Amino acid sequence: MTRGRFIALEGGEGTGKSTQSRLLAAEFERRGLKVVLTREPGGTAGAEAIRKLLLEPPGEGWGMRAEALLFAAARSDHVERLIDPALASGRWVICDRFLDSSRAYQGSAGLLGDELVRSLHKSGSRGLLPDLTLVIAVDDATAAARLAARDGTASDAIGGRDGAYHASVNAAFLQFTQSEPERFAVIDGEGTVEQVHSRILAALEPLFEADPRS
Amino acid sequence: MTRGRFIALEGGEGTGKSTQSRLLAAEFERRGLKVVLTREPGGTAGAEAIRKLLLEPPGEGWGMRAEALLFAAARSDHVERLIDPALASGRWVICDRFLDSSRAYQGSAGLLGDELVRSLHKSGSRGLLPDLTLVIAVDDATAAARLAARDGTASDAIGGRDGAYHASVNAAFLQFTQSEPERFAVIDGEGTVEQVHSRILAALEPLFEADPRS
Repeated sequence: MTRGRFIALEGGEGTGKSTQSRLLAAEFERRGLKVVLTREPGGTAGAEAIRKLLLEPPGEGWGMRAEALLFAAARSDHVERLIDPALASGRWVICDRFLDSSRAYQGSAGLLGDELVRSLHKSGSRGLLPDLTLVIAVDDATAAARLAARDGTASDAIGGRDGAYHASVNAAFLQFTQSEPERFAVIDGEGTVEQVHSRILAALEPLFEADPRS
Repeated sequence: MTRGRFIALEGGEGTGKSTQSRLLAAEFERRGLKVVLTREPGGTAGAEAIRKLLLEPPGEGWGMRAEALLFAAARSDHVERLIDPALASGRWVICDRFLDSSRAYQGSAGLLGDELVRSLHKSGSRGLLPDLTLVIAVDDATAAARLAARDGTASDAIGGRDGAYHASVNAAFLQFTQSEPERFAVIDGEGTVEQVHSRILAALEPLFEADPRS
């Protein structure tokens, strides 16, 4: 069995990750690939329970250290129960957020540092990395407009943090792509949904060409 | 403000930790100390929510890595929101289980290794250690009899593991006390509740003598 490929979509709030993840899964299926579309935090019964604790914290809210540990715990369950078995059985896994969101939100904007977040990922998930991580980048104004257009979605404990925090998150994602360019593709997220989808497919061409099944 | 003292009670299932923690808190209050009696996993609203996930896991149960991360997350919240502030305000903190339970249950019996568990504790709680950790040791037969006498308490996801696992937990606690004798007092847990309580008070005498308030 040829191992599947693992593709993560990353970016700040309102960059279009979830929409683009769905479109990408549909395109993979059209090409005859077996696909698992999933998200973080979540993707398994255990990780979804942790997601609820993270986004609607009991008590006075999590400190940044507890928050990072909870994300790593959710990711550990997700990798062990869903992602690793799916890849081993030849499926292509598309994940809406993965490790680099923890690096951006808790490590960089949350000031815990990259070493701590990577250490938790090693402990929880043996350091598993996607084959390719797509970082969708949009202007702050575009992100704000997209968030405003979401109907009735109250902001959660993390999405609701202030503008300086989210600006730091966005800057961190771009810095990651510069530090490890071989691991990332930066996708221009401006324009229509279809335009962004086409840019994502173009960025994935090298992976498709390397795989006889696609 | 003189910093308070931090005392943890450790041991396997059915060793009498919870009973002895309560008696110890009452004795401290009798001596005029300000006391916080707490437990792990739990002790704060956030950590108690994590406790519920740990003892009644959603889905198919946690893998050992996710379990260790969840314990570290609960401990992080507990230390940041309750233990650190209590110690800073001069209170004596009595905690029913702390780090050494994670070392015994996940690191040793759970085969994750001590380095991983200590690394999570450094990430989550800056490596905070109790001033003294009391390890209550009883024969397997005594522990089994005490567990059987508990009315109506169904065994949880961790307490319900097999005998080999719990034997490994108990062996780990004793090994810890041999590796770092300055951090531990081994308490003979056989006999009556009052006898064990007296042994604990005797073990704490050096701490009392060092503290002008007690």
